Amino acid sequence: MARINDHYLKLAGGYLFPEVGRRVEAFRVAHPDADLIRLGIGDVVLPLPRSVRDAMHRAIDEMGTEEGFRGYAPDQGYPFLQQAIARVEYGSLGVEIAPDEIFISDGSKCDSANIQEIFSPEARIAVPDPTYPVYVDSNVMAGRSGPADANGSYAGLVYLPCTEATGFLPEPPDEPVDLVYLCSPNNPTGSAASREQLERWVAWANRNQAILLYDAAYASYITQAGLPHSIFEIEGARRVAIEFRSLSKSAGFTGLRLAWVAIPRELEGRDASGAAVSIFDLWKRRHATKFNGVAYPVQAGAAAAYTPEGQAEVRELVDYYLANARALLEGLGSAGLRTFGGINAPYVWLETPAGTGSWEFFDRLLEESSLVGTPGAGFGPAGEGYFRLSAFSKRDRIDEAVGRIEKLRF
Amino acid sequence: MARINDHYLKLAGGYLFPEVGRRVEAFRVAHPDADLIRLGIGDVVLPLPRSVRDAMHRAIDEMGTEEGFRGYAPDQGYPFLQQAIARVEYGSLGVEIAPDEIFISDGSKCDSANIQEIFSPEARIAVPDPTYPVYVDSNVMAGRSGPADANGSYAGLVYLPCTEATGFLPEPPDEPVDLVYLCSPNNPTGSAASREQLERWVAWANRNQAILLYDAAYASYITQAGLPHSIFEIEGARRVAIEFRSLSKSAGFTGLRLAWVAIPRELEGRDASGAAVSIFDLWKRRHATKFNGVAYPVQAGAAAAYTPEGQAEVRELVDYYLANARALLEGLGSAGLRTFGGINAPYVWLETPAGTGSWEFFDRLLEESSLVGTPGAGFGPAGEGYFRLSAFSKRDRIDEAVGRIEKLRF
Repeated sequence: MARINDHYLKLAGGYLFPEVGRRVEAFRVAHPDADLIRLGIGDVVLPLPRSVRDAMHRAIDEMGTEEGFRGYAPDQGYPFLQQAIARVEYGSLGVEIAPDEIFISDGSKCDSANIQEIFSPEARIAVPDPTYPVYVDSNVMAGRSGPADANGSYAGLVYLPCTEATGFLPEPPDEPVDLVYLCSPNNPTGSAASREQLERWVAWANRNQAILLYDAAYASYITQAGLPHSIFEIEGARRVAIEFRSLSKSAGFTGLRLAWVAIPRELEGRDASGAAVSIFDLWKRRHATKFNGVAYPVQAGAAAAYTPEGQAEVRELVDYYLANARALLEGLGSAGLRTFGGINAPYVWLETPAGTGSWEFFDRLLEESSLVGTPGAGFGPAGEGYFRLSAFSKRDRIDEAVGRIEKLRF
Repeated sequence: MARINDHYLKLAGGYLFPEVGRRVEAFRVAHPDADLIRLGIGDVVLPLPRSVRDAMHRAIDEMGTEEGFRGYAPDQGYPFLQQAIARVEYGSLGVEIAPDEIFISDGSKCDSANIQEIFSPEARIAVPDPTYPVYVDSNVMAGRSGPADANGSYAGLVYLPCTEATGFLPEPPDEPVDLVYLCSPNNPTGSAASREQLERWVAWANRNQAILLYDAAYASYITQAGLPHSIFEIEGARRVAIEFRSLSKSAGFTGLRLAWVAIPRELEGRDASGAAVSIFDLWKRRHATKFNGVAYPVQAGAAAAYTPEGQAEVRELVDYYLANARALLEGLGSAGLRTFGGINAPYVWLETPAGTGSWEFFDRLLEESSLVGTPGAGFGPAGEGYFRLSAFSKRDRIDEAVGRIEKLRF
């Protein structure tokens, strides 16, 4: 029989969310009449903005005509969308990212899983702990780790603890690594990096010749003045960073799929001989070989999210979920729980009551309140003792959830 | 600096089509008034079927409502689409593929590039020669080859010549390999495998414990009775084959992106200890970790292509391009060229005139007739002496191309 990729067999258990799904399903079977509130997986719930829908309708009508039909899109995306993103997401911040440094894709999950391919199988990887599981799993699959221990930590990966002491964001490691995954606003902790923190990271990466894989999929949730929305707001970042961005949680595109990777042309790695190699060129080659562009109607819809009307609609969506997050923070606080995040991110990170493990807390919320969240330990060992609640829900459900939590005794 | 994946540096020159694009661009700059006819890249040109557009419009309207909004799609695709495919593409042939053995994706290019990931880095790979370049490049990038020689052949890969003697399709190799890429109807040669040929392959794979990666993206172009449309029409294929299919060239989805991989649950590989491992489970794990589903409106459009109206529209599109292929075959024949393919595929494979290399023929067609095709050598060394013309064009352009070719002296 054909030999398989044995590294897949190292993957600890299922992906976190399937395990959550399994427990919820078991609960539903046991309590078919329970009124479940799902604040687990962070998936948007509000209708798609009108400007996006209108543009998609127009694009589909165009594709029904002889003159307007469009086949294969350019691998890297339509210039009209690259230009809109460069202007609104970077130009408005005074950040220099050229339209052709933007690679349009079908999701930040895919991008952040695939980016490791262009680096050496021996590259040393650092990940936040807790972390978005895809960063870890994609590197385990590629053979950059040993086996997992009982906590789900893989030998060979460098874990950067995100604890209350570090403000729930990682600090640069003492040991040398090649690639560091950073996520801000952070999933799952809901904290966003300050300019000083990012300056420290960029300086460290320049000094250590490391590359920062900066996932800013939640950038539009930043509300506090002065916090950077892009790593490229930091001087020197063009030599050390790749940025991942997405329309999933801003314009409500989880069901449409549109994201991008920004790679500055200055960014370099080195080959076996030590010679410098353009990271932009490597990703361009990967994109051209393994990807075939995003659907034209989806790109047209994405571009509409960058018109003035689209931007107003996006702002309204984001504000709605941010108001949910505030309601969660207040309700959890009055229930006696300590909370973090939720101000510059759609996630609230709460400390579980003393002596209650995060899966135990998951089971208790589910059993006693028919409420689904995500146990912190599912995101990594340092997530033990914490719990994530997502603000992506309708407001009446958030209020109902808060009411149920307030009834619990902690 | 971070160490890169050195295997990328082995990739010979650019991907074929960028080189074609470069030469065409140089010609356009030199002859700005030339009336270029592009029969190079195989991209559809006819408008999107009405049933597909109508379904996409409805899906977008649904996503604009509170009740109808859909976020993340199931990783493997919406059951309504898996069921439609299972029924129309497999059930109608009497082939047993369950809906949940179908993994919906955004393209066969991506799928055929990604499938190698779940196999060992040491897996021995066989590819047709000439071949669709993605099979080769994705394995080179993953380190399963040595460097390329002057012909562009990579050390360590097993090349299966597709020559006039083999009917322009590969025959099973004498040496042991783990994975074999097969493509029927073949890109670029335009030939389709007979039942006997596929039976030979399935028997060989069962005997040699190899896995067949069967790319049938052009299955809807098969016109001759008795030719299999799916590898799973062959007894025993469920133990040895994975099938790749696409709506790109049937329903005109190159600009929408929808394809699927069918993996039977019986299919197994082995791990380092020799134990059997489910290939279905490995791909499911990859899909869940590195992919996030296809846009709901695109899946809704794809399902509409499987309604009776949609099927009639698809048939009309395919027949149009097949009529183009017949016109090309006749015109090239009367110009004194020997031709192959074009009956069960949208590609005509022609023998270049004696003594004319395939890139030389490319340059001559471009210079003398303002006609763009694809040099056979670009698909592999055994493609030298051949040339591919695509039938994906408007009929008047095909007729004009034929007229120009008939004026040439060979």
